[in-house]
Amino acid sequence: MDKKISDKVINRLTLYHCILSDYINDKIEFISSKQIAQLLNIDDSQVRKDINLLNNSGKCRVGYIVKELKISIEKTLGFKKTKKAFIIGAGNLGSAIAKYDNFTDYGLNILALFDNDPNKIGKIVNGLKIQEMTKLPQIALKEDADIAILTVPRQFAQTTADFLVKANIKYIWNFTPAVLSVPDDVQVWNENLMGNFLQFTYNI
Amino acid sequence: MDKKISDKVINRLTLYHCILSDYINDKIEFISSKQIAQLLNIDDSQVRKDINLLNNSGKCRVGYIVKELKISIEKTLGFKKTKKAFIIGAGNLGSAIAKYDNFTDYGLNILALFDNDPNKIGKIVNGLKIQEMTKLPQIALKEDADIAILTVPRQFAQTTADFLVKANIKYIWNFTPAVLSVPDDVQVWNENLMGNFLQFTYNI
Repeated sequence: MDKKISDKVINRLTLYHCILSDYINDKIEFISSKQIAQLLNIDDSQVRKDINLLNNSGKCRVGYIVKELKISIEKTLGFKKTKKAFIIGAGNLGSAIAKYDNFTDYGLNILALFDNDPNKIGKIVNGLKIQEMTKLPQIALKEDADIAILTVPRQFAQTTADFLVKANIKYIWNFTPAVLSVPDDVQVWNENLMGNFLQFTYNI
Repeated sequence: MDKKISDKVINRLTLYHCILSDYINDKIEFISSKQIAQLLNIDDSQVRKDINLLNNSGKCRVGYIVKELKISIEKTLGFKKTKKAFIIGAGNLGSAIAKYDNFTDYGLNILALFDNDPNKIGKIVNGLKIQEMTKLPQIALKEDADIAILTVPRQFAQTTADFLVKANIKYIWNFTPAVLSVPDDVQVWNENLMGNFLQFTYNI
């Protein structure tokens, strides 16, 4: 796929993928654009337009073939290109992400959690070991992993980011409510929860 | 403010607001569009354009007055119009959201958590009591609250959503990886974490 797919389309395709997974669980073979559109409260012409962006061969008279459409989305969005990541901060949020049921299906392979609380180190969360923060540079190098999911408290966000940058982490998925200052060769993806909330509620 | 502000602008304004809070903590009085742009790795003409949408009087020769710009953003995005909400599911994710440090500053007033695990009921998370799920309809009515933040495991997402709809909840902020089926008069805001991850990593 060489076509550039916009963020909004990626977001919608991921939601279609969730619906398709549910249909497969329910052993339903076909789905129409209208069914998808209704569940997401969007226009079905939008759904058809998005699906037209995929190399999807599974179109038939009664709609799309669920299994083939699911595979088309996975191929287009690169679910099989696994990306290795660490969770930084083994509090509630870090643990919730470690347990989030289907990140692996989407190509996100979380290798370990890191924390500097001695009471947490060595414990297991969803099969992943909580490691001492100081071990991160060595493990990142060994595993060739450069994505960090940052879930520490706000007041430690910048100092932790500085530490990650020194450890050659190149991508920080930032769940903290802090804006991080990093060098040009490091990308920060802000999971801006307050921004999302304000978007949702702006018109209430 | 009658001007319609797009989702992307709301998202950026929230990030500017985080930066301004940090500047206030550091007792810095002025900020330039360039300083904001650098921290977010965006163009400073974009920052100026966004700020021009606000009724902001705090512009001066050396940049924007931090305190006034912060207040302008708060007024425009309605931080003072408090919205009451419940967290449904007192697991790691629900607890993390209950502890998220500054939702209150942004007008999100979380009243309680709900769960149906007897071991959790009655416990306190960040000053909020975990209530028995069956009490939700009565408390929602009494508190006139109609926003639910859904953080239950995927397999309980739809049945819990059905229960919330019956309890007159009108807005569901859905953190589960399930697409919910709800009546037309109920809005679902999907916090599509996998979609966000795929957006971020699409070009890696």
